Amino acid sequence: MSAYTAPLKDMKFVLNELAGLADVAKLPGYQEATPDTVDAILEEASKFATEILDPINYSGDQEGSVWKDGAVATPRGFKHAYQQYVAGGWGSLPFEAQWGGQGLPKLVATAVEEMLTSSNMSFSLCPLLTQGAIHALELCGAEALKKTYLGKMIEGSWTGTMNLTEPQAGSDLALVRTRAVREGDHYRISGQKIFITYGEHDLAENIVHLVLARTPEAPEGVKGISLFLVPKFLPKPDGTPGERNAARCASIEHKLGIHASPTAVMVFDNAVGYLVGEENKGLSYMFVMMNAARFSVGLEGVAIAERAFQRALAYARERLQGKDLVEGASTVPIIRHPDVRRMLMLMKSQTEAMRALAYVVAAAMDFAQKVEDKNQRQKHQAFVDLMIPVVKGWSSETGIEIASLGVQVHGGMGFIEETGAAQHLRDARITTIYEGTTGIQAGDLVGRKIARDSGATAKALVTELKRFDAELARSKNPDIQAMRPVLAAGTAAVADCVDYIVANAGKDVRGVFAGAVPFLKLMGIVAGGWQMARAALAAEKLLSGDSNFYQAKIKTARFFAEHVLVQAPGLRDTVVKGGAGVMALSDEQFLAS
Amino acid sequence: MSAYTAPLKDMKFVLNELAGLADVAKLPGYQEATPDTVDAILEEASKFATEILDPINYSGDQEGSVWKDGAVATPRGFKHAYQQYVAGGWGSLPFEAQWGGQGLPKLVATAVEEMLTSSNMSFSLCPLLTQGAIHALELCGAEALKKTYLGKMIEGSWTGTMNLTEPQAGSDLALVRTRAVREGDHYRISGQKIFITYGEHDLAENIVHLVLARTPEAPEGVKGISLFLVPKFLPKPDGTPGERNAARCASIEHKLGIHASPTAVMVFDNAVGYLVGEENKGLSYMFVMMNAARFSVGLEGVAIAERAFQRALAYARERLQGKDLVEGASTVPIIRHPDVRRMLMLMKSQTEAMRALAYVVAAAMDFAQKVEDKNQRQKHQAFVDLMIPVVKGWSSETGIEIASLGVQVHGGMGFIEETGAAQHLRDARITTIYEGTTGIQAGDLVGRKIARDSGATAKALVTELKRFDAELARSKNPDIQAMRPVLAAGTAAVADCVDYIVANAGKDVRGVFAGAVPFLKLMGIVAGGWQMARAALAAEKLLSGDSNFYQAKIKTARFFAEHVLVQAPGLRDTVVKGGAGVMALSDEQFLAS
Repeated sequence: MSAYTAPLKDMKFVLNELAGLADVAKLPGYQEATPDTVDAILEEASKFATEILDPINYSGDQEGSVWKDGAVATPRGFKHAYQQYVAGGWGSLPFEAQWGGQGLPKLVATAVEEMLTSSNMSFSLCPLLTQGAIHALELCGAEALKKTYLGKMIEGSWTGTMNLTEPQAGSDLALVRTRAVREGDHYRISGQKIFITYGEHDLAENIVHLVLARTPEAPEGVKGISLFLVPKFLPKPDGTPGERNAARCASIEHKLGIHASPTAVMVFDNAVGYLVGEENKGLSYMFVMMNAARFSVGLEGVAIAERAFQRALAYARERLQGKDLVEGASTVPIIRHPDVRRMLMLMKSQTEAMRALAYVVAAAMDFAQKVEDKNQRQKHQAFVDLMIPVVKGWSSETGIEIASLGVQVHGGMGFIEETGAAQHLRDARITTIYEGTTGIQAGDLVGRKIARDSGATAKALVTELKRFDAELARSKNPDIQAMRPVLAAGTAAVADCVDYIVANAGKDVRGVFAGAVPFLKLMGIVAGGWQMARAALAAEKLLSGDSNFYQAKIKTARFFAEHVLVQAPGLRDTVVKGGAGVMALSDEQFLAS
Repeated sequence: MSAYTAPLKDMKFVLNELAGLADVAKLPGYQEATPDTVDAILEEASKFATEILDPINYSGDQEGSVWKDGAVATPRGFKHAYQQYVAGGWGSLPFEAQWGGQGLPKLVATAVEEMLTSSNMSFSLCPLLTQGAIHALELCGAEALKKTYLGKMIEGSWTGTMNLTEPQAGSDLALVRTRAVREGDHYRISGQKIFITYGEHDLAENIVHLVLARTPEAPEGVKGISLFLVPKFLPKPDGTPGERNAARCASIEHKLGIHASPTAVMVFDNAVGYLVGEENKGLSYMFVMMNAARFSVGLEGVAIAERAFQRALAYARERLQGKDLVEGASTVPIIRHPDVRRMLMLMKSQTEAMRALAYVVAAAMDFAQKVEDKNQRQKHQAFVDLMIPVVKGWSSETGIEIASLGVQVHGGMGFIEETGAAQHLRDARITTIYEGTTGIQAGDLVGRKIARDSGATAKALVTELKRFDAELARSKNPDIQAMRPVLAAGTAAVADCVDYIVANAGKDVRGVFAGAVPFLKLMGIVAGGWQMARAALAAEKLLSGDSNFYQAKIKTARFFAEHVLVQAPGLRDTVVKGGAGVMALSDEQFLAS
C-alpha cells in the first residue's frame, strides 16, 4: 500500500507562480513568511502528514470512533497524533501572535491544511472545526471570552465545534429551536443538536461548543438566532477546566465514511453558555465560521483527490495486466493502457486545477485582510465571496468523482476495503453535503454573489479572462494554443450565463435557481481552466532541458481543456435553456410511474 | 423508510410502446407471452420484490454473509426468500421448456430481473450468475452434462458461478494458471480463483462452478483456455448431490457494497471437473455467459437507479425545510426547491432512458434468436452486439451517479447508513467494474464493434436516427420540437466519432482508445435520448385529458435532452481532439510533482 507523499513541487509552484506568495509575504504582518520559513514549514508538515497521520488513516476508518456512556474513544493512535499536532504548533499557523498564533498567511496555512487532510481527513476535521470556532470568537467575541478561550484553542489543548443542525433544522436554520435563557452574566442553554463533528472525543482536555439558540423574546426565523459559547468543562478562575457542564453526547452516528471522526448528537440540558457578540446576530457570526469552513471543505476535495490519485498511480504502475496496444508482446503495467492513463490524467489535471484555484482564493483572502488600499481590499473580498461557493461546490463534487475514478483504476481490488481506495470515496462523499450542500452553494453563488450586485464581480472576472486571452495569444507553444479556443468558449459561456442570471433572477427566480448547480460547475471548470492556462504559461517560461515537472504541467493543462473545460458550452445551454424543464412536473406527475 | 414499488406503468409503457412486446410475442416459441400472461407475471414479480426481497435488503447489507470454516451463511431471511424464488419458478422464465423452462422472451424476463435487482441487488446476483452458467451450458455443453445439470439449475435447486479471475489474471484472462489434467472421462482441476460471486453459500443444495483452466499441453494465452464444470457435490447416479468435491471456499471478501452477496476465494485442489464443449475453446464459451452477464449488469444500473430515485422522491416529498422561492411564507417539502427538483429529474429521466434502451436491446435479443429471416436475425444481432457494451457501461456509470444523487437529495441524512440511501451507492459502485470494467466495455465497443466492421452497424444506427428526426419533425408538440436540435447534434456527434474511429483505428490505435470511454458515454446519452424522444412521440399519441403519466413522459424526455444529451458535442470534441493529450506524459512526468 502506497504512503502519502505531499506534492511539494506542485504546491510550491502554485504558491509562487500562481498565488503570488512573494506579494502576500509583503503584506503587513506577514513578514515571517520568508521563502526559507515557508519551505521549512511545508517540509515539516509533509513529514507530519506522512509519518504520523497517514499510518492511522486506514486503521482509523476500520476501528471508527466508539461511543460508550456519553464518552467517545477515538481510534488507536489518534490521541498520540493529536498530541504531536499540538506540540508542533500546527493549529496556530494563521492566527494573531497576540493570542499565541504564528501570524502566517492563510495561503501558507492552506497548503499545510491540504497535507493534513490528504493524509487523514477524519483527523483533520477536529482542527478544521476548531479553527472555524477560533475565527468566530476572534471576530465577534467579547474580550473576556477571548482571554479565557482563544489561547487554549489556538494552542490546541482545547478544541472547538459548530452546533447548528437540529433534527428539524438542517439547511434551514430558521427552524432552530434550542433555547437560551439569561441568568446573570451567562445563559442557560437547552436543546438537541445533531451532526456535531467532534462534538465529543478524547483528544483534548476541553471542548468549546459554539451553539445557535434562541432567547425567549427573540423574533422568529433567522433574525432571532443568537450564538453561545458552551464549554464542556467550565473554566476555573485559573483558566483550567473545572466543573462539567450539562452538554452531553447522547450518541454518535453510523456513517458511510469519515468513521474516525465522531459525529455527535449533543444534548444541552440547562447548560451554562456565554453570549458571543450580541443577541439575535448569531447567523452573521455563524457565517464567519461557515465561510472559513466552506473553503476548507473545498480544500478537502483537493486533498482527497490528491490522495486518491497517488494511490491509483502507484497501483497502475505496479499492476501487470494486458499487452501494450501497439507494442504487443509482454504483459505491461496497466498505466500503459490508454483508458487507465485517461483516468489518471482526469485525476491529476482536475486535482491540480482545484489546488490552483483554492490557493489563489486563499491568497485573495490574505490580500482582502491586509492590503492597505481599501478599494483593493474590497476588490479582493468580492473575488473571495464569489469564489468560496465555487471552491466548496466544485472541488467537493469533483473530489468525489476523482475518488471514484481511483476505485475504478484498481478494478476489482478497488471494491475490496483492504485496498484503501474505497475509503477515499466514502470519506469524500460527505463533502458535497456538510457546511451547505452543493445546491446551497450554488444558490449562494447565483443569488447573493451574482444577482445581488447585478453581476459586477462576475463580469470583472470575465473581463480578466478576456484580457488573459491576449496573454495566451503571445505564446508560441502549440499546447497552449490548443487550449485558447476552449478557454475562450468557456469564458463566453460564463458571460452568457451571468447575463441570463442578471436578466432573469427577478422575473423567473425558479428557472434561474434550477440552473444554479450546472452554473456552479461551469464556473468551476472555467476558473480551473484559467488557472491551468496560467500554470502552462508560467511553466513555459520556466522550462529548461529536462524539466519533467514543467513539461507535464503544460500537457496536463491541455488535457484539462480537452477533457474537462470542453463541457462548458453544454453547461451554458443547460443553464440558459433548461430551467423550465426542471419545474415542469407536478407532484402527481412524479408519482405516475 | 420507503418500500420499493415496481414502476409497472413505465415498464409496461416501455415493453409495449418502445420494445415492441406484441411483435416479440409473435416470434416462434413465444406464444405464451400474451398480454394477460405478461401482466400477471409482472404483477406477481412486483409483489415478490416488494414483499419478500425488499424487506431483507437493508438488514442483509448490515449483517453481510459470514464465512466460517469453509461454509458461508447468508444473512437472515435469504434462505427463506430463495426458497420462495424457487417455488415461484422465477429462475426458469427465459429458458427452453425442454429443460423445465417457461420459454418466455428475454424481454419479459428483463422486466422481472429489474424488479428483483431493484429490491435486493445482493440477492439477485445468485440468480444472475446461475442464469449465465445455464446459458453457457445450454449452448456449449454435451448432452450428458445438460441432462444432469440443466434441470436442477433452471429450477433453482442448484446454483451456478463463473470462475474466471485469479490474483494475477483479472481483465487479462491470458494469464489464467489454473490447471486441468485429464483423468478418464473427467479432469482434475487445481488452482485458486478470486472474486467468485456466490462461490459458496447456504441457499441451495449444490453449486455448479464453471471454471476456466488450462490443460497441460494447451497453447499459451487465451487460445489455451478451456471451460470446466466443477460441482460442489458430485451428483450420484440418481441425480442427487453425492460426494463433496475438492472445491472449497477459503475466505470471502470485505467489500464496499453488496455485503450480502458472498464474494469467494475458491481453491480447487485436484477437484473433479467435466469439460464443457471442446478443449481450448473456453474463452468463446465464457463470452456466452459474459454477454448475458454484461447486459444484466447494465440492468443493475437501471435497477439501482430506480430504487435510489424512489427513496429520494419519498424523502423529498416529506422533508420540510426552507420556503418556496416564489411563494415564501411557510416551510415546504424540499421537492419544491428547484435544485432538489433538478436532482430528482436527473434521476428520473436518466433511469427511464436507461430502462428504455435496455428493454429495446432485450427485444432485439429475442428477434436475433427467433426471427425466421436470417438477414433480420443478423441485423438484430449486430445491433445487440453494438449495444451490449453501451448498456453495460453507460447504465452502470449512470447508475452510480444516480445513487450518489440519491444520497445528495437526503442531505446529511444521506450520509447516515440507517437512511438506506448510502447502501445503493455502495452497491452500485461494483457495477462499472465486474463483468468487464467500463474501459473494457469501451474498448470492445470501439475495437470489436465499430472498427472491425468499418463502422457499418454504427452507421446504420446513425441513418435510423436521421430517419427518426423526420418523424419528430411532424410533431406539433413544443417540448418535442425543443428536443429535436439537441438529438440532431447528438446524432452528428456520433457520426463524427464513428468516422474518426474508422479512419484512425489503424494508424493511431492509442489515440482512438484514449477516447473510448467518452465515446461510450456519448453513445449512451444519444441512444438514451433517442429512446426518450420515441417515448415522447408515443406518449403524445396516447395523451388524453388527465394523463399524468404521458404528460410527465414528454416533459421528462425534454429534460433529458436539455440536461444530459446536451453534453454530446463536448464529448465529441474530447473523442476527436483529446486522444493525444491522454498519452502525453511519460512515466517520469507522472511522478514529477
